Amino acid sequence: MTAQQRRILVIGIGAGDPDHLTLAAVKAMRRTDVFFVVGKGPEKASLTDLRLRMLDEHARMPYRVVETDDPSRDRRPMGRGDYTLAVDDWRTRRADLFEAMLRDEMTAEETGAFLVWGDPSLYDSTLGILADIEARGTVSPDVEVVPGISSVSSLAARHRIPLNQVGRPVHITPARRLFDVGQNDDGDIVVMLDAHESFSRIEGEGVWIYWGAYLGTPDELLVAGPLRDVADRIRRLRAEARSRHGWIMDTYLLRLADEGTGPTAPVTPGEPGGDA
Amino acid sequence: MTAQQRRILVIGIGAGDPDHLTLAAVKAMRRTDVFFVVGKGPEKASLTDLRLRMLDEHARMPYRVVETDDPSRDRRPMGRGDYTLAVDDWRTRRADLFEAMLRDEMTAEETGAFLVWGDPSLYDSTLGILADIEARGTVSPDVEVVPGISSVSSLAARHRIPLNQVGRPVHITPARRLFDVGQNDDGDIVVMLDAHESFSRIEGEGVWIYWGAYLGTPDELLVAGPLRDVADRIRRLRAEARSRHGWIMDTYLLRLADEGTGPTAPVTPGEPGGDA
Repeated sequence: MTAQQRRILVIGIGAGDPDHLTLAAVKAMRRTDVFFVVGKGPEKASLTDLRLRMLDEHARMPYRVVETDDPSRDRRPMGRGDYTLAVDDWRTRRADLFEAMLRDEMTAEETGAFLVWGDPSLYDSTLGILADIEARGTVSPDVEVVPGISSVSSLAARHRIPLNQVGRPVHITPARRLFDVGQNDDGDIVVMLDAHESFSRIEGEGVWIYWGAYLGTPDELLVAGPLRDVADRIRRLRAEARSRHGWIMDTYLLRLADEGTGPTAPVTPGEPGGDA
Repeated sequence: MTAQQRRILVIGIGAGDPDHLTLAAVKAMRRTDVFFVVGKGPEKASLTDLRLRMLDEHARMPYRVVETDDPSRDRRPMGRGDYTLAVDDWRTRRADLFEAMLRDEMTAEETGAFLVWGDPSLYDSTLGILADIEARGTVSPDVEVVPGISSVSSLAARHRIPLNQVGRPVHITPARRLFDVGQNDDGDIVVMLDAHESFSRIEGEGVWIYWGAYLGTPDELLVAGPLRDVADRIRRLRAEARSRHGWIMDTYLLRLADEGTGPTAPVTPGEPGGDA
């Protein structure tokens, strides 16, 4: 059996501000016949709404929207091995779902698109799942990726800071790996997917946090300051916002001072330190 | 003396593809009176041209363009301390230049803008220099940042890969710090600002490289594969392209296998491993 060809666009749509769509994303939406919209947990309604509003404004009629529920995923705290297994299981079920949609909901002559929150290259599973489907051999997606403004870029822009200090690295990590990264250098750390307020476990003078939630939306929250001084405020805002909205999407940058990490100049956190 | 207020937009314009402008960037350009265009070394002509073409297409007449030369910078290989000093000296001279432009080339009623390559939050000095100027106290820039598609996002999009593997961190580093980062975890590494082909010094089986130059432009070059197999080809392409254009702007992702770095699953490089 020959694999069925499918033309698929994976379009980054930014992290919440509809004006963070690129011209390329708008053009890609205008040549799409079928949009696949995958709902995601309790935040589903708001995020799906935003995507549908973008289609209203930018897509070219006639187009179809195929909405589906994301397979549920075990999100209890767990060790690294169990975590990988849980993600693998969830990815298999998601690949089943995507494969069926690509096979049954569009033809080889049409163009399908996934509208991906933020940037498809950062902590999003769409590209991985399309690669899994390709490997199965029944449907062959010919994928084009349109990059998007990530929540990381949005966070830095809203705080008007660079992510990196002069000549230094920056680390982007899921919260569960926060304590593995950046232990041996002077880079700053961006934390994603933090359901458990991991910043509460960071100690020490001279650690600054730049935090943001619902970035680019009317509900946006921003807090910046020495972690020691603002952690309580962030926890309180998070709890209030999560109970009001039913979900929260937040990210933060930790700008670390250099105690014991290496032979570098003293940091003056809060003063953006650009590089070139 | 009171500091003179200045309304300044710092607009990320993407890494080369004019369609990577966001709708927000276009709107920001349309409300700008004065654009500051800072030339940068041998690549100056091409990059300045691209920005002027963007203004032609998107800015609202009448607008002014103030072009200036970037102060020269000592780019010889040097140790970390000397490097920081060289950057500090260059930043001081750049701040002098920016301060004079903001003071003399626009009024408090106008809006000025810097068009920044890629994303202002990644390895760009504009925000740091504006903070330096603010600290001097004669000109007070009221800064708004419009995030842009970075060369890192473009690289991943063109290779159709995520930057991170499932549940793992990703490190972004200047080439000179490549050997400091990621030694103690299993994250992938994006290398920026590599004038010296530092990938040539990476050893080992199972290291994949995803390399790109002049991303998003008609001159784009892409190579992906096991580092051992493709390093020669990248060096040859780099040399040819640099001699043809007089400059090169490239970046790459190193996807590292796990030999001895931690208790993780084996990597199958080349298969994009998404996350969620």
